[in-house]
Amino acid sequence: MDWLEDAAAVPSETHRQQAAARQSELTKPPGSLGELEALAIRLAALQGREKPALQRVAITIFAADHGVAAEGVSAFPQEVTVAMIANFVQGGAAISVLARELGASLEVVDVGAATATGHLAGVVQARVGDGTANFCLGPAMSEQQLALALAVGREALLRAERPELFIGGEMGIANTTAASAIAAALLGLPAAALSGPGTGLNPDGVSHKAQVIERALALHRDRLDGPLAVLQHLGGFEIAALCGAYIAAAQQGVPVLVDGFISSVAALLALRIRPDIAPWLLLSHASAEPGHATVVAAIGQRPIIDLGMRLGEGSGAAICLPLLRLACALHNNMATFAEAGVAKE
Amino acid sequence: MDWLEDAAAVPSETHRQQAAARQSELTKPPGSLGELEALAIRLAALQGREKPALQRVAITIFAADHGVAAEGVSAFPQEVTVAMIANFVQGGAAISVLARELGASLEVVDVGAATATGHLAGVVQARVGDGTANFCLGPAMSEQQLALALAVGREALLRAERPELFIGGEMGIANTTAASAIAAALLGLPAAALSGPGTGLNPDGVSHKAQVIERALALHRDRLDGPLAVLQHLGGFEIAALCGAYIAAAQQGVPVLVDGFISSVAALLALRIRPDIAPWLLLSHASAEPGHATVVAAIGQRPIIDLGMRLGEGSGAAICLPLLRLACALHNNMATFAEAGVAKE
Repeated sequence: MDWLEDAAAVPSETHRQQAAARQSELTKPPGSLGELEALAIRLAALQGREKPALQRVAITIFAADHGVAAEGVSAFPQEVTVAMIANFVQGGAAISVLARELGASLEVVDVGAATATGHLAGVVQARVGDGTANFCLGPAMSEQQLALALAVGREALLRAERPELFIGGEMGIANTTAASAIAAALLGLPAAALSGPGTGLNPDGVSHKAQVIERALALHRDRLDGPLAVLQHLGGFEIAALCGAYIAAAQQGVPVLVDGFISSVAALLALRIRPDIAPWLLLSHASAEPGHATVVAAIGQRPIIDLGMRLGEGSGAAICLPLLRLACALHNNMATFAEAGVAKE
Repeated sequence: MDWLEDAAAVPSETHRQQAAARQSELTKPPGSLGELEALAIRLAALQGREKPALQRVAITIFAADHGVAAEGVSAFPQEVTVAMIANFVQGGAAISVLARELGASLEVVDVGAATATGHLAGVVQARVGDGTANFCLGPAMSEQQLALALAVGREALLRAERPELFIGGEMGIANTTAASAIAAALLGLPAAALSGPGTGLNPDGVSHKAQVIERALALHRDRLDGPLAVLQHLGGFEIAALCGAYIAAAQQGVPVLVDGFISSVAALLALRIRPDIAPWLLLSHASAEPGHATVVAAIGQRPIIDLGMRLGEGSGAAICLPLLRLACALHNNMATFAEAGVAKE
């Protein structure tokens, strides 16, 4: 895991200032494009050019299973993970539709579903195990599995060959349970403060889920010293891969559009491992999963949109992408006051 | 104005139910696409088809001037209206960039700028006057001008030849003053509750603007009986044209994506004239103009996005369009549980 020691790239202050100056010359009242102005300026700084662009966007979905599913914490059975991996590569899932519409690349990585996916054409095989272990009984993964899963994320990012933006997504039955456990451990909060319905638990189910997480937090309490230990003990493989991809993206100078609850927990882990990656992570949407607001507050950014989504797969980030693209188009292509002969305020 | 008596089209309950049933069969947890699900279902009902589409989108900008600009209520001089009309047709304005990016048609209609625009190629000439009169001194427009301006909006909508979605925009120095005055009159609220910085007034300027509106409301008090009288006395031509376009769209069965503050005031007027048009109006974005929230509450819908925009020109609606398009794409193209062989909850 030596690569985790490499510093994140540094955004270009020169290009940030150039872009801010350009915004003030465009034919509109100052500030009237609201957050779109700040986003364009931020992307200019991240991409190191006066006119940012988001044509080449890479979406990678990391899928894996969770031993804690045995505790009855999800509304769906575990075999749905592999069925959805098939749906991703066959083009029927939400993120598959979105990637096509957006002209983004889509890679699906099996980081460790409970059963093999080798029969599914188009799935990248990077299995770290047959799902994590049940973290109510022991660590979700070994140290070696942790290192492998983080590296799966980095390798996926490197395969994408410096896209103009990276979107990570995840799939894994019971992975909101793992994400809630991780967030509770990182933030020192009770499980109930971070547990929600996930794919559709009723209130009793949410209560049971929080109790399962509390048991795990109690079991591992003495070993949860630092983000890597939290990730190892509470899982999952796909969350570790996302975390690794985010860190690698920042190291490579690739902006990241973070999806919802689980992705934001991966981002929080990544920020705890390498705080210098913060400029590279843009939060896309506010998830309907109740714990997301707490994780967002800990990250310290405001998501761009709030549509009550809670699907995962990177879908909320993908939905947000056109807004960023239009922010860039406005920044790059609007006339200046001088060009248009319009009087300034 | 006889055409205002024609009823709005009626959305298809059959297609609404078909679309809702389809949503429940798509490979995702029920409700996990949040507002995107409701939007797709609503568009299916409005368009009368199980699979809605938003490829053919018509954007029309109505521009006009306001006599009340003489009271010093805007941060920009009145000649900016014509300069921006030129910028619209020459492709340098925000809405010009957005229309190109979105593949939407863009029509620019001069409903009555203070000076002529006949020299500008591509501007539709539909001038109702050389700007409205100063509503602090008398009615903003005559009854005949009101009828003409409403008809300009209807004719623009009819020229668009049944688009799958209509977006109206506006430009006119001082038109937030007219819109605030109209909203105050319609809602029976003090001017201060609906007055804001517009293109960039400082707090003293906002206070002055509210006083100007209060003077006008006092002057016309006895004649503001009903939405058409409010519109005639407080203006402006472009607001009347937007109002006419919205009503005509609903009569023709064309869904409308409403922009920000001024457009929402036009929508409120249209709803007061013909309450049956309500299903056809979708609010796109929450404007940073402070009065917008009050107008939105009166309309009774939640805008889809909130990016702190306050530019007008239809720009907020245009920014929102890709989200609606993706909502349709997901609805139309995702696999069902049966097609994908995924177990339901």
